[in-house]
Amino acid sequence: MSHNTFGHLFRVTTWGESHGPAIGCVVDGCPPGIALDETRIQPFLDARRPGTSRFVTQRREADAVRILSGTFDAGAGAVTTGTPIALMIENTDQRSGDYAGIAAQYRPGHADFTYDAKYGVRDPRGGGRSSARETACRVAAGAVARAVLAHSLGEGVAIRGALVAIGGDGIDRAAWDWVETTRNPFWCPDAAAAARWERALDAARKAGSSLGAVVEVRAQGIPAGLGAPVYGKLDAELAGALMSINAVKGVEIGEGFAAAALRGEDNADAMRAGAQGPVFASNHAGGILGGISTGAEIVARFAVKPTSSILTPVPSLDREGREIEVRTTGRHDPCVGIRAAPVGEAMMACVLADALLRARGQGAPRGL
Amino acid sequence: MSHNTFGHLFRVTTWGESHGPAIGCVVDGCPPGIALDETRIQPFLDARRPGTSRFVTQRREADAVRILSGTFDAGAGAVTTGTPIALMIENTDQRSGDYAGIAAQYRPGHADFTYDAKYGVRDPRGGGRSSARETACRVAAGAVARAVLAHSLGEGVAIRGALVAIGGDGIDRAAWDWVETTRNPFWCPDAAAAARWERALDAARKAGSSLGAVVEVRAQGIPAGLGAPVYGKLDAELAGALMSINAVKGVEIGEGFAAAALRGEDNADAMRAGAQGPVFASNHAGGILGGISTGAEIVARFAVKPTSSILTPVPSLDREGREIEVRTTGRHDPCVGIRAAPVGEAMMACVLADALLRARGQGAPRGL
Amino acid sequence: MSHNTFGHLFRVTTWGESHGPAIGCVVDGCPPGIALDETRIQPFLDARRPGTSRFVTQRREADAVRILSGTFDAGAGAVTTGTPIALMIENTDQRSGDYAGIAAQYRPGHADFTYDAKYGVRDPRGGGRSSARETACRVAAGAVARAVLAHSLGEGVAIRGALVAIGGDGIDRAAWDWVETTRNPFWCPDAAAAARWERALDAARKAGSSLGAVVEVRAQGIPAGLGAPVYGKLDAELAGALMSINAVKGVEIGEGFAAAALRGEDNADAMRAGAQGPVFASNHAGGILGGISTGAEIVARFAVKPTSSILTPVPSLDREGREIEVRTTGRHDPCVGIRAAPVGEAMMACVLADALLRARGQGAPRGL
Amino acid sequence: MSHNTFGHLFRVTTWGESHGPAIGCVVDGCPPGIALDETRIQPFLDARRPGTSRFVTQRREADAVRILSGTFDAGAGAVTTGTPIALMIENTDQRSGDYAGIAAQYRPGHADFTYDAKYGVRDPRGGGRSSARETACRVAAGAVARAVLAHSLGEGVAIRGALVAIGGDGIDRAAWDWVETTRNPFWCPDAAAAARWERALDAARKAGSSLGAVVEVRAQGIPAGLGAPVYGKLDAELAGALMSINAVKGVEIGEGFAAAALRGEDNADAMRAGAQGPVFASNHAGGILGGISTGAEIVARFAVKPTSSILTPVPSLDREGREIEVRTTGRHDPCVGIRAAPVGEAMMACVLADALLRARGQGAPRGL
Repeated sequence: MSHNTFGHLFRVTTWGESHGPAIGCVVDGCPPGIALDETRIQPFLDARRPGTSRFVTQRREADAVRILSGTFDAGAGAVTTGTPIALMIENTDQRSGDYAGIAAQYRPGHADFTYDAKYGVRDPRGGGRSSARETACRVAAGAVARAVLAHSLGEGVAIRGALVAIGGDGIDRAAWDWVETTRNPFWCPDAAAAARWERALDAARKAGSSLGAVVEVRAQGIPAGLGAPVYGKLDAELAGALMSINAVKGVEIGEGFAAAALRGEDNADAMRAGAQGPVFASNHAGGILGGISTGAEIVARFAVKPTSSILTPVPSLDREGREIEVRTTGRHDPCVGIRAAPVGEAMMACVLADALLRARGQGAPRGL
Repeated sequence: MSHNTFGHLFRVTTWGESHGPAIGCVVDGCPPGIALDETRIQPFLDARRPGTSRFVTQRREADAVRILSGTFDAGAGAVTTGTPIALMIENTDQRSGDYAGIAAQYRPGHADFTYDAKYGVRDPRGGGRSSARETACRVAAGAVARAVLAHSLGEGVAIRGALVAIGGDGIDRAAWDWVETTRNPFWCPDAAAAARWERALDAARKAGSSLGAVVEVRAQGIPAGLGAPVYGKLDAELAGALMSINAVKGVEIGEGFAAAALRGEDNADAMRAGAQGPVFASNHAGGILGGISTGAEIVARFAVKPTSSILTPVPSLDREGREIEVRTTGRHDPCVGIRAAPVGEAMMACVLADALLRARGQGAPRGL
Repeated sequence: MSHNTFGHLFRVTTWGESHGPAIGCVVDGCPPGIALDETRIQPFLDARRPGTSRFVTQRREADAVRILSGTFDAGAGAVTTGTPIALMIENTDQRSGDYAGIAAQYRPGHADFTYDAKYGVRDPRGGGRSSARETACRVAAGAVARAVLAHSLGEGVAIRGALVAIGGDGIDRAAWDWVETTRNPFWCPDAAAAARWERALDAARKAGSSLGAVVEVRAQGIPAGLGAPVYGKLDAELAGALMSINAVKGVEIGEGFAAAALRGEDNADAMRAGAQGPVFASNHAGGILGGISTGAEIVARFAVKPTSSILTPVPSLDREGREIEVRTTGRHDPCVGIRAAPVGEAMMACVLADALLRARGQGAPRGL
Repeated sequence: MSHNTFGHLFRVTTWGESHGPAIGCVVDGCPPGIALDETRIQPFLDARRPGTSRFVTQRREADAVRILSGTFDAGAGAVTTGTPIALMIENTDQRSGDYAGIAAQYRPGHADFTYDAKYGVRDPRGGGRSSARETACRVAAGAVARAVLAHSLGEGVAIRGALVAIGGDGIDRAAWDWVETTRNPFWCPDAAAAARWERALDAARKAGSSLGAVVEVRAQGIPAGLGAPVYGKLDAELAGALMSINAVKGVEIGEGFAAAALRGEDNADAMRAGAQGPVFASNHAGGILGGISTGAEIVARFAVKPTSSILTPVPSLDREGREIEVRTTGRHDPCVGIRAAPVGEAMMACVLADALLRARGQGAPRGL
């Protein structure tokens, strides 16, 4: 309900601006007794961190997360206590001066104009609240969500993301290799595509341009029965979660938009009897039917628009309504989609943790 | 939080199964003093109603809506009183017998298996709660949302939907004519495409198959400043709303997935000074930046999978886990996407009415 | 968030005006597989029904409840399906004419002026939405909540209410007898007090006056561990729930206001080791510590003001701001507190059912 | 919905344990453009702070609040931006060692047993999350709520609290003097009562005992029309808010429990025509009718039980279920009710700010 809160029983409230003293979040509703300390969160922040390759913003921050509440160590390692978990990340590399010149400008593709239209006031430093820096909190909260899922469903749960296209150049799905996503700076599961993307991104940056991307996130090990009918559909929750990530313009589940071009018999996922229950012969549904998980892998994709901050000048307005041209210099990712992969994973983890707690609350599915 | 409630300040709670005595909804949070009686709701239900052409289910229902609460006529016509508006539609053509045979089967592509996995019990008659019949309540609530928007923003607000593709065959956007959407049974804005779709659907039905569709919904007359940062983004709310419609597998805003293939300078919407404020030279953003409306037309699309109920047999299981083949006879739309257009409009209207009330609550945007 | 919705996971949304065609509610979040048909709800409505004695309003309504959704009978009796349960009660004895004369008046002690101040429009017939008639829906929803509690916690759960004072004349607690509450029209557990109250109420009515009351509600069989810290405290939820009943002006838990006059050692509830876990030697806490149930009986009381509709004239205003005197004729209870007892029980049942589902959602308390 | 979040549109989420590194809160939904910096919050924390007299805990903390987000200073002083306001207070005087001995004990009257029953794990240091230290965050959030009310309703809004009884010894209401509440350490508006209370508290402490208290909070300058029907009643929101304060066992509005002993004509508040609208000749209703504010002063009271931490030994159990006696040494208030006054004020401010925003969202009351 709150504009800055996500989830129902597993709830994440984030706060903070790009250039304030810190950003953070409060994770409320986490069950008690789950092992949690900073070492279980920091690796996910490190993976998302800026400055790790020449393809992401050169802003350098340690992004060190601190747990301020909600855990207690009675001697056997810190565990969650069921009370709210406050996480904080200090902003250490702010360089507010970089942005002083554009405080009075509306950067095309950014939220400058709309924040002003809505609030009449905004923090212009680095985009303020609209900065993608907020997503660091999502990644931190996602790490807590992963701990919840692993605690309840076992270590077989895996939530992973990969870029499947940059600038319209898609991967060869036959070459998909999860290990490869850790070897290149693009979370790309196809080594050949990664090599092409490297060249494309270098060219785009040289041209003062930017590229969009498509990210795919998948969850393995999720049992059938999570989600709910009607407005609490698991796919509806995922769609809202993924669309809330900065720069995302589209979300799809399973076959997605391609399903609209299929015939009924080609889109059907045949069910067969497996050793541990029903098995689906295909997964056009992306693991969700009627808003409820089927037990198959949950598959979602989202489209990230090209970075709006580009060197190429774009006609725009200033706050007084005068026509200007905006040309953005400074530290910016040539493809913001690259850093969106861990954020998409985190949102999927949060949605699933929330769905798990909600399902339990309603006494279903059986056995959970 | 509730699985069957949609919205925050303008809240819609729906109830009812396909073959129960009635379906209905409660619309809470509607401001007082807005003219409302059944004549302002019924036309939208009539447009969605089954049985209106040979391309939609032959189930025949009057779908007559009754207002049971929340309005009062002090002599000058009924107006809303600010109290909850209960709407009810009786189910008059239920034919439960049709479905008795498949109560123990899991129909592929339907929620039969997942409802059982979650609840251990389900109403199998016509899909029970998972039936698209629930969407009649959305359309009714959407009519109330339209009244809220018109009351606050003026009659310039227009929320309209159109099918832009069926079975992978897209319209010619240059031929777009809103009037045409009322002349063919497909909400198709391109007469030539409508003619092709008619042939394709006849062929699909004859083959015992079905087709998917893509629906576009647009809102004109929405001022800048609606929506909110982070998790309350207007596009995130729309994505969740549209993805919650039965059979929807993808949602996109403005340029959508195509944006991921554009370069930054090609995706940028230049701003120019207009007579009544900023004007956008293009609308790749679909009227939303940073989760907040820009004042440009709001544009969303969603993909609807082909009808899962087909004559072609599909391997499946029964409730005891035995392998069977399911072949669905009975009254079914060859393309469920056709009837999704008014539902998409209704969800967009609800999201915008809710965003309007929330924005006002927070004292923004100025002037609303 | 919604003004007409109560609860979090077990959610009740009510609708309807005193003199509209019907009133009703939607109960969402009820777990599946619980036996439920009208016969499990109607007895509670019958107990609350007007016209059952000369001490409650003579409005005569069957108050027959219908279940419109959310249950299915597969042959072994109807059970809940996990989908929203819509309940409806038709208004059959409306006599709107009775109220026509006072449509333009502000009845002292009623919500007439405040509804107008808030909404600028109101349904004046019988108090419209502010009528105590709405509480019939609470009683119906409470019956569903009882079914949830019994299903999960066993038949040992008992939620009962009793009047402990009318017009300042309190019962003798030593004479408390639950059976007696069903023998007199006052839900009075003390036969001697009931006899005195009968005389006092007859005298008050004869004098055109009215009396207030104090109601006590108790829940037995609730395990330790329901509720939550801080804002989700079980006592805070109960306080909000009971204060939301019409005409209630005070709520207390356990020792309540009297605790403020005790010394620490006198208010302490000593704990001893019992056969099935901790036992409390006293229950000043009313079964709740730190917002969480202790396993002892949960005890709450609430104060109901005297009926505002009295024959004695009271200075007031009309809608145009002119000074008038209001004297209320028609069918009114001389003590609205009498009919509040089943409503208080119902609210306690709803709070506890919700707390049970929420606790389960968060994986606690252990064993539930 | 969240256990640690309070409010709907003006939402406060608190976090932190008594002996963790810090406590804090996130205030979301605050309208933009309101002057806010630490100097507008700190005075309220200073007033609540421990160690200010010998009658409150000797724990000494600066309780210095920091604003970490949600404001921006464009040169004319910091104002809110509409984004979440994160407030943090570091814990500087923790002395965890004091509590090590009782980690395995259940202190009577405290949440030790119930937290264990619910969560199976707890932070025992200083009561962890159940410590009254959490209320510092409420006071800080209340200061923001006051700024919202003053910004919207003018400086005429005054929300003030006073103790009206300690240990059963009530004030002389005829002697009420708001200035006096700032002169004695008891927030007592009656100098004579304050002198008596001083003696009583000294005696109680000497005896190793403790006393309860009754606190009254009042809001002046609140217009008619705030609040809502049914479950969103202003008095229901207040009751839940005040009952959520540590150690509170009862809440009443206006005449409260005393109303239950009045006759209808004696409890009626006559309305007369005043220069600026309706005037009430009395205020038995405490400024609320039908859940909506009348424009009269809003009056609530709450009962605080005597401090549970006393030197007098009380029979109890340890975590293994063995019978023990608990005797609490260390720094504790002999009457926790004293420090509850500023907390009650803060909760009332938060409830009213939230009601104001919600009312505006629904387009009512007119003119706000």
